[in-house]
Parts: sequence; C-alpha cells; structure tokens
Amino acid sequence: MTMHQSTALLTDMYELTMVESTLQSGAADRESVFEVFSRRLPAGRRYGVVAGTGRILEQLADFRFSDAELSYLREHRIVSESTIDWLADYRFTGDIYGYREGECFFPGSPILTVTGTFAEAVLLETLILSILNHDAAVAAAASRMTIAAHGRPCLEMGARRTHEQAAVAAARAAVVGGFAGTSVLEAGRMYGIRAIGTAAHSFTLVHDTEEDAFAAQIATMGTDTTLLVDTFDVRRGVERAVRAARDAGGELGAIRLDSGDLVAQAITVRRQLDELGATGTKITVTSDLDEYAIAALGAAPVDSYGVGTKLVTGSGFPTAELVYKLVAREDSRGHIREVAKKSASKGSVGGLKVAGRLRDEDGVAREELIISCASWEQGFEKLDEMGARPLQVPLVLAGEVQSHVTAQEAAAHHVQSRNELPYQAWRLSEGEAAIPSTMIDIFPGDQNPYDGT
Amino acid sequence: MTMHQSTALLTDMYELTMVESTLQSGAADRESVFEVFSRRLPAGRRYGVVAGTGRILEQLADFRFSDAELSYLREHRIVSESTIDWLADYRFTGDIYGYREGECFFPGSPILTVTGTFAEAVLLETLILSILNHDAAVAAAASRMTIAAHGRPCLEMGARRTHEQAAVAAARAAVVGGFAGTSVLEAGRMYGIRAIGTAAHSFTLVHDTEEDAFAAQIATMGTDTTLLVDTFDVRRGVERAVRAARDAGGELGAIRLDSGDLVAQAITVRRQLDELGATGTKITVTSDLDEYAIAALGAAPVDSYGVGTKLVTGSGFPTAELVYKLVAREDSRGHIREVAKKSASKGSVGGLKVAGRLRDEDGVAREELIISCASWEQGFEKLDEMGARPLQVPLVLAGEVQSHVTAQEAAAHHVQSRNELPYQAWRLSEGEAAIPSTMIDIFPGDQNPYDGT
Repeated sequence: MTMHQSTALLTDMYELTMVESTLQSGAADRESVFEVFSRRLPAGRRYGVVAGTGRILEQLADFRFSDAELSYLREHRIVSESTIDWLADYRFTGDIYGYREGECFFPGSPILTVTGTFAEAVLLETLILSILNHDAAVAAAASRMTIAAHGRPCLEMGARRTHEQAAVAAARAAVVGGFAGTSVLEAGRMYGIRAIGTAAHSFTLVHDTEEDAFAAQIATMGTDTTLLVDTFDVRRGVERAVRAARDAGGELGAIRLDSGDLVAQAITVRRQLDELGATGTKITVTSDLDEYAIAALGAAPVDSYGVGTKLVTGSGFPTAELVYKLVAREDSRGHIREVAKKSASKGSVGGLKVAGRLRDEDGVAREELIISCASWEQGFEKLDEMGARPLQVPLVLAGEVQSHVTAQEAAAHHVQSRNELPYQAWRLSEGEAAIPSTMIDIFPGDQNPYDGT
Repeated sequence: MTMHQSTALLTDMYELTMVESTLQSGAADRESVFEVFSRRLPAGRRYGVVAGTGRILEQLADFRFSDAELSYLREHRIVSESTIDWLADYRFTGDIYGYREGECFFPGSPILTVTGTFAEAVLLETLILSILNHDAAVAAAASRMTIAAHGRPCLEMGARRTHEQAAVAAARAAVVGGFAGTSVLEAGRMYGIRAIGTAAHSFTLVHDTEEDAFAAQIATMGTDTTLLVDTFDVRRGVERAVRAARDAGGELGAIRLDSGDLVAQAITVRRQLDELGATGTKITVTSDLDEYAIAALGAAPVDSYGVGTKLVTGSGFPTAELVYKLVAREDSRGHIREVAKKSASKGSVGGLKVAGRLRDEDGVAREELIISCASWEQGFEKLDEMGARPLQVPLVLAGEVQSHVTAQEAAAHHVQSRNELPYQAWRLSEGEAAIPSTMIDIFPGDQNPYDGT
C-alpha cells in the first residue's frame, strides 16, 4: 500500500465529457464556485459530522492522469485527443475552503467549496463526494454511538461487513466520531489508529479443548488479554478463563461476549467474575450493536463496546446525501454570477456561501448562519460583525494543500463542536436538526440569479 | 492503479494474534475447513447472489506481507518476531472451492470453502468476507432492479454515494446482477464495463443559456447524445433539446430526467417528443430509483434507468451478512473432526459441505441440498446419486488460482441461475427464500461434533 496510484478515474465519465464540451465551447475556463452541501439530514438525525476532508487532501495529490488512465480514455474514445492532452497536464490550481474535519453540520451547511475554472473544478466532483458521503455517514453513526456509550470506549470492528478499502476509511471516520480503536490493521498502519483484537471462535474450536485455547492465548498474549467465552457455555467459559489466567500467575484482562442477551449476560457474568474474585477483569461486548443497543447497555456492567455492521453502514444511513453543485460562475463579461437549478425537489441556492455558528451567551450554538456573498472577505467580515464563529478554513490555495488533517485532530475538533450544540443534539430519538439554518444574501447587485430565462 | 499493492493488512488484527498463538500451541498446522455462508437472507429477500469471487482471486495474489506491512507489525508489537518471519513467507497453499460467481444462494449455502492449515486459512477471513459481503449486497439489489426493469437497460451511477474504491467494486457487482453499464471510469478500465455519461446540471449552468449548453454538448458528442432537460423547465428544455439536435442536422439520441414525478413526466415528455416528431428520441430517468420505483415506471414510456444510491447501498441491505466459520479441523491424532459453535442465535453446522440444486422435471429449482460430508468426492457422488446440479467449483487448488472470473461471465451465469428459480423468486414483495435449504449429514462415524465438553 505504499506506492503511488492515480485516483483520476475514480470519476464519473460525465465529468470528462463536460470537460471536453466546455473546452470546445469556451466555458471550461470560466471561474466557477462549486459547493458541497446536503439538502437535509437523514430522517430524524440531529446533526451531521464532516469527515473525509483529510482523505480528500491526500488523494488530491494522486489525481493525475498517467499513461494507464490516458490509454484507457484513448482506446475507448471517451474523449478526444485534445482533451487527452489537457488531462495529461491536469493539476488542480484552484482553492478549496471547507468546514474543519469533525465539525457538526446542518442542512445547507456549505461544508466544502471548490473554486477554480469550471473544467478543473468539475473534474473533482465524484472523488470528493465519494469520500465525504462515505466518511460522513460513518462518522455520524460513530458520534451517536459514542454519545450513547457515555465515555465507555467504543471499538470499530466492521471491516468484514464492508468493502475492503471502505473498511480502512470507515475506521478513520469512526475515530473522527469518537471511537478509540479499530480491528483493521491497515487503518492502524495508515492513520496511526490503535489496532485491537485477540481471537475468534475458530481459535477455540481449533484446539482440543477450551482450556487449551485459553492457555495458548495467554501464553502468547499474557494474562491481560481478552478471552472469548461464549463458544460453548458462557458460565463454564468464564470459569475456565479466570482459571487460565490464574494458572499463568495473573488476573485476566477481559472477557468478550459475542452472542445472546447482552444485558442479562453482562450482569450475570459480572456477578460471576466478582464471585470468582476477578473484580479487575473487564467485560467487552461485540454482538450486533448500534447506538440504541449501546444505550440499552448503559446500566449493564460493560466496560467497552465493539461495533461492526451498524457502524460501517452508517446505522441505517450508509450515505450522507451530500451534493456538489455549481453555485456561481463567471459570465461572458468576466463578472461572477450566482447560478441555481430550479427544480422544486432538488433546487439549489446560488452564490458563494460563508458560514458561521451563532452562539448564545453561554456559548451554546443556536443557529447555522449561511451567507451568500461575493467573496470570502465579505463573508468573513459579516460573520465577525454578527459575532458568529467562522466554520470554514482554507484547505487548498492555488492548488497547494495548506495543511494535512489527521483523524485524531478531527476527533478532537468533533468533541468541541458537539459539546457546543444544545442538549437536544445529544438525543438518540428522531427529531429536527439541533439548530436551524438561516440563509442570508448579501451578494451585491444581481439579486436574481441566472435561471435560464 | 496499475501497480502492485499488498492486501495483507486489510485484515482484522485478531487473525494475526490467532496465527501467533496457534504457532506456539501447535494448532496452526492443523488441517482446517472454513466455510462462508449466511444464516439468513436479508428480511423478505427471495435469494442472494454470489458476487466478488473474481475479485477475491485477484487480490489473493497480493496477499503478501512486504516490508511496509512487516515494519508496521514489528513497530507496534502486534506479533512476535517469529510470527513476523512466518508472515514474511506467507503464501496460501490450500484449496478454495466456491459457488460460481453469479449463482443464486440461500440460507446455509456454503458459497465459499477454504481448506488449508488453520493459520493459512484463518488469515484470509477478513479480506474474503469484506469482498463477498459488499459485492453480494450490491449484486442482489442489482438483480432485483433488473427484474423490475423487464429488459430495459439499467445503468450504474452510484459512485458518488459510496466509498471511492467501493464504487468500482459496486459497478462490477451491478454487472453481475444484470446492469448494462456504469458511470465510473475506473470500472470501465479495470473490468471492461461499458462507461456511460454525458453532462450534469452544472454543465447547463456554466453556459449563458440552455441553448448554448445543448449546442456545445452536441458539437462534441454528436446528436446521438443524452441531454439533461430539467435544469430550469422541462417542457422548454425538451423543445430546446430537440431543436439543438435538428440544428446540427440529426435526431436527438435521448433526454434525461433527474427530478420530479418521473412517471407523470415521462408520459408528458414522451407525448411532447412525439408531437415534435422526435419519435426516435429516448427517455432515460435517473432520480432516486430503487427496484420499486423501477417497477412503478414499468408502464411509463421510459427507455433506460440510471440507478445510484439504492444500488450501491444494497437497497436497504448494504451488507450480505455472510460469515466465515471453522466447520472441521484435524485433531491431535490427525483425524478430521467436525466442529461447531453452540450459541442459540449464532450456532453453526459442522463439517465440509457439498451443495447441489435439486430441480423438478421442468428444470425448476426446488431445493438447496447441503450435504455435510467427509470429502469433496463423497459429496459430489451423493449429489450425482440424487440428481442435483453441483454448485461448487474448484477456484484455487494447492494455492494456484484455477481460472479467473470476469464480471461478464458471472453475469451470464446469474441469468441462468435466476431463470432456473421458481416464479416466486422474481417477486419484489417480501417473502420466504424462493427454495428451502435441506441439510443432510453423511459424515462417517463422528456424528456428534466436538462441542467443548
């Protein structure tokens, strides 16, 4: 996983045919503003979580059309030779501003803004949306789960339930949402996330007896390991696990429960462990958890949660419904004009947007302020005037990545951003967005954006 | 995307700690049988679709621990030096049998069977499950959609709604389920899938007028292109689209509708096209489709469907719930013993399984026959005796891939397999599996698998 690979063809074909057609029509060079936002949150969710920004910045460097990509385009006549020449030289030279990774967002929040020529900016649509839609879906689920866990560590174990590369990104997004570790090693290697894991049922079954299996695991991993006790009979498994650690001269680190009624089992097993004197031995549970199951285990004596399927599939919402829309572009006289699609269900609001979070005197967020304006400067001034916390930072300027973003930094920012939200944001039940989004328009002059008339 | 990259760390850490512990306990070398199956189909689904087999065979060759992977394991003390030495030499030398890619499957179907030593076979668990769980989920959704489409082409357009690499695999899985093309270029390049796509709303909006945009697209792509007509006003868009093609001396290939009430719009637009004399101009629809929306459009004059979100997220079931379980292994005397976990909710059935499909005199499938037995030979003989169509083929023998599987071959096989199913399999409504699974046990001798007592 160490070598360069191009990300350029992780792209919908129509981005390239649009480049081709605009190169010929002349519109390719028009300065343009594309915006990533969601029209709505998934039903009942109180907030979204920006995630994937760091991955976009990494992959932007690999968005190059090398011989392999160009040959394919040529052989299949996807675009003409002149467009292939243009693609061979392609480097993004524009700007990208975005919400900080880990920031909470709401309907209409302009979480990423790409400015540049139409052709250079439209090309990035698919890659940017793929990354953000996937990672934000996982991070939002992770955030709800870590709320439900009330400080008990949550561990990501969903690799087997999702695409093998998506699994690595999901582990990263889980960390953004507050998870403490991952089962998948590549996420450990790439992102410095703590890797965790000890043994599966097959490990017990390949040995002649459960005692043999436990002794073998302790012999290599020490007594501070986690033994899986539900292969045959939980009560007997717990007895054997505690004894195996004592035989090796220590106290067992933890036992893992992976099936059955987890609340009842956790209570029973805790009592059994305490009766056996293994009061320091922890309990981790890993069976089909989601935020509701985690909340239900709140009163049970559980020390950590391993979450798989529901985490990597966004707990019911596997994609974040983010879109990438042209909101302003240069006209034939070189003036920037707002543009917007008119569809009733899929309309968009024109203009560059600068966003800030308005907070009350206690520092509690009360409104997402979204300002349609002519420039970053104008928008930031207005935010300052209104006392709103600015949400966007420059990520790429003139094609240069300004600073990379780690999952750990994003996780730290997410904690701050989430803590700032009003109480209702923390509720798992379905409801409205935690704060309303308010759009104001200070774009000078042209108040009626181009609508095709 | 042309260079080698290791897939070895797309693996849960516990696979490696199990290797470590069994290398020390001696169980690592026990001949073992691991089986991939699902305990149930997603609620209401009539059949599953095997997909991803071809990708497993490709990635198996890259399952190598190179310096980058070994350094990570060493630095983070994931396993000991002796295990690192073992991993450095790792090559899978066992056998893999599996259902042919594209085959329909049912609860308990042994869709992939990995035999080898415990250590070499357990290591592949995460990668195999990731690939199969993702690809089978997408292929199953695709299959239902192509049933609903009744022969009208379905086109995959979901790249932006899923992880950027998952998107490429999703396009491949969609083809296995009967899709005719994809928007994402890398899937075209890697798998020879037809790439499709013309323009987005941003293309219209970057031009001064809709007329300019249509003329520009036709100038580069010819009149046989697909124009997106709903940026402003559909009726006016259709007029302009037809006129733009005529001005260029041809008839327009197609128009695309991406918003609004698609049934009503398709009827209105078809009438308008016919009134304009554009009787050969086709209509493609692309807004939030799933199998139910496609079925509802059955009576509307639509020529093809572009499907995004619901396809790549498995239409409500983004993962296939396949598991990888140890079902038999050598004991200390060198005899193969069935093994099984005893949990009520997550139990498994021991023994190597050979599977066949029983059909009635009309060739209609009526039963999934799953035989727990001592060897492939014994199982295949029994299938022959019972007149069942064998479902498993050797994919890897002694570590050597027997033959690669393309998406197109899998798609052809899926059509055959699906056509063989009884009528109820084709219904979109919720129901039982289309055929029952019957398990029989002809494992000689040891009828009571090891249960830890």
